[in-house]
Amino acid sequence: MSYKAITLKKRPETVISEDLFDVVELNQPDLLDGQVLVKLSHLSLDPAMRGWMSPDENSYIPPVKLGDVMRASGVGDIVESKNEQFPVGTRVMGLMGLTEYAVSDGSNLNIVPKEIPQEAILSVVALPGVTAYHGLFEVLKPQKGQTIAITAAAGSVGSLVGQMAKNLGLTVIGVAGTNEKCQWLTEELGFDHALNYKADDFQNQLTNASSNGIDLFFENTGGTAQAPIFNAMNAHGRIAVCGLIAEYNKTEASAGPSWVGIIKKRLNIQGFTMPDHFHKFPEYGKALGQMLMKGELKYRAHTLEGINSATSGINLLFSGENKGKLIVKL
Amino acid sequence: MSYKAITLKKRPETVISEDLFDVVELNQPDLLDGQVLVKLSHLSLDPAMRGWMSPDENSYIPPVKLGDVMRASGVGDIVESKNEQFPVGTRVMGLMGLTEYAVSDGSNLNIVPKEIPQEAILSVVALPGVTAYHGLFEVLKPQKGQTIAITAAAGSVGSLVGQMAKNLGLTVIGVAGTNEKCQWLTEELGFDHALNYKADDFQNQLTNASSNGIDLFFENTGGTAQAPIFNAMNAHGRIAVCGLIAEYNKTEASAGPSWVGIIKKRLNIQGFTMPDHFHKFPEYGKALGQMLMKGELKYRAHTLEGINSATSGINLLFSGENKGKLIVKL
Repeated sequence: MSYKAITLKKRPETVISEDLFDVVELNQPDLLDGQVLVKLSHLSLDPAMRGWMSPDENSYIPPVKLGDVMRASGVGDIVESKNEQFPVGTRVMGLMGLTEYAVSDGSNLNIVPKEIPQEAILSVVALPGVTAYHGLFEVLKPQKGQTIAITAAAGSVGSLVGQMAKNLGLTVIGVAGTNEKCQWLTEELGFDHALNYKADDFQNQLTNASSNGIDLFFENTGGTAQAPIFNAMNAHGRIAVCGLIAEYNKTEASAGPSWVGIIKKRLNIQGFTMPDHFHKFPEYGKALGQMLMKGELKYRAHTLEGINSATSGINLLFSGENKGKLIVKL
Repeated sequence: MSYKAITLKKRPETVISEDLFDVVELNQPDLLDGQVLVKLSHLSLDPAMRGWMSPDENSYIPPVKLGDVMRASGVGDIVESKNEQFPVGTRVMGLMGLTEYAVSDGSNLNIVPKEIPQEAILSVVALPGVTAYHGLFEVLKPQKGQTIAITAAAGSVGSLVGQMAKNLGLTVIGVAGTNEKCQWLTEELGFDHALNYKADDFQNQLTNASSNGIDLFFENTGGTAQAPIFNAMNAHGRIAVCGLIAEYNKTEASAGPSWVGIIKKRLNIQGFTMPDHFHKFPEYGKALGQMLMKGELKYRAHTLEGINSATSGINLLFSGENKGKLIVKL
């Protein structure tokens, strides 16, 4: 049996283009003892993939080797098994790559319940969910009554951060790049404020929305919104630096704010990436699954069809054109 | 009886000049019940005084009012007392201002032992010491074997941070602005490396000194040295932002480093100022006093004579011309 997969042909200079990838036909290898064959049904396209495509000695995870299947999360069902822990029919998620089938020894797989739709798994319980959960609870340590600002607030991570913060009793300010996304944040997700950073009067809108200042800042973008939010931080404010999607495709990243504000306001700034916290995934996943089942977390998936759609589809994340969690349905 | 004091006449625009101050003659008021009269013997000139001279809604402590005695730490002896806790002859330190005599109800005073010279009190146990202690132990959380970089390393705070870190088994890189200071750091204080940030090959010197990267960064200056040290940080590095003396006299503070490094290296950056941690002063003071008595902490005092010397002397901190803790002996 042969199947399709997407390999990394070239590394990006600035933007990601289709010609960086090859769509290849692979032959299914025979399973060794302990291995399983997963038939993927849904692949996840995430901003973190940009980092995995570029070699960087400081990065938290080795880059994908040229010619290897591109790294990505996915959900699928076990269709052949030589591993007792993963019988045929088990549904799993994990970093299985942009591929229709994956062979695994199980070490990169988590079993997930079939009651939760696969798109909800990838949107809420998988990487976006654990990232939102860790950044909010472990880094920002929110307290009822505080004000939180979130960039890329309509993105897969930001939308979950805002909903969890709202459920805790915080005032939630979301920043996004289209009016449609802002409307979704306030009308569907219950954010207190949603501001379009492309608006001419963004600074005024932010000043009005943050009349009590900003205590917590969940940073996903960099770019235009960073300085105004930074300048509105309250004393003892906390900043979680989760992503800087506006910076990744630049040849030279923008400077950050002066550190004078860091002293005057005694700010805490913490960068984080989830591979450091892999051991917490089961705990976070359980908590997120419970919130999802209780109806406390809404999501929307932006679904592409067929594995070939991944090579151009990933760019929707960087242009901001995706509406919700970007998923490829196979 | 009348005595001299220095009041704040004008607020600084950029640099501090003598004409911002008035030297005034004050008459000693009669003591009320609970009050004491302190005869100051030594006044402390500290970089924090720059912030106390300027109104800033974000500052951690209200600015000195125009016409009031300028805020400053000092050491003195009780010469009259209507307070049982502070009998005549007791030696005290505290924020008593730039003055020859101070009246106090005791709430701003700490009793200090007479066995420790007054200059050692102000250099090690007072504000510089508690700042160094808090920043190193509570913010940076050092571990044996790590490498720490310290700016303004020959200053009153930096020199103590480096000595305490060295005593814990860290590799210590000090950055200072003259070769004489660098020599003092390595030859007298036992720093592993001391680099002059004004040297043409500072970047190369830093690269050589930090061959294992930098785990901890105690930032006192901003300016030239900040970016090279930031770029040399290791993953999971910690940065304590204690002071930015190169920035305070500028009309517009310099930009900071891009936040991309904060994510890639999962850095933690914490600004701090000591008034937030006032309740820890007795604990820190005790620990510092013990280190001092054991000979684990060396210091050098740059001593000016007479209260009038304070108005021009404070500028030595900003030009970097002071050699050691700047003190006015009365």
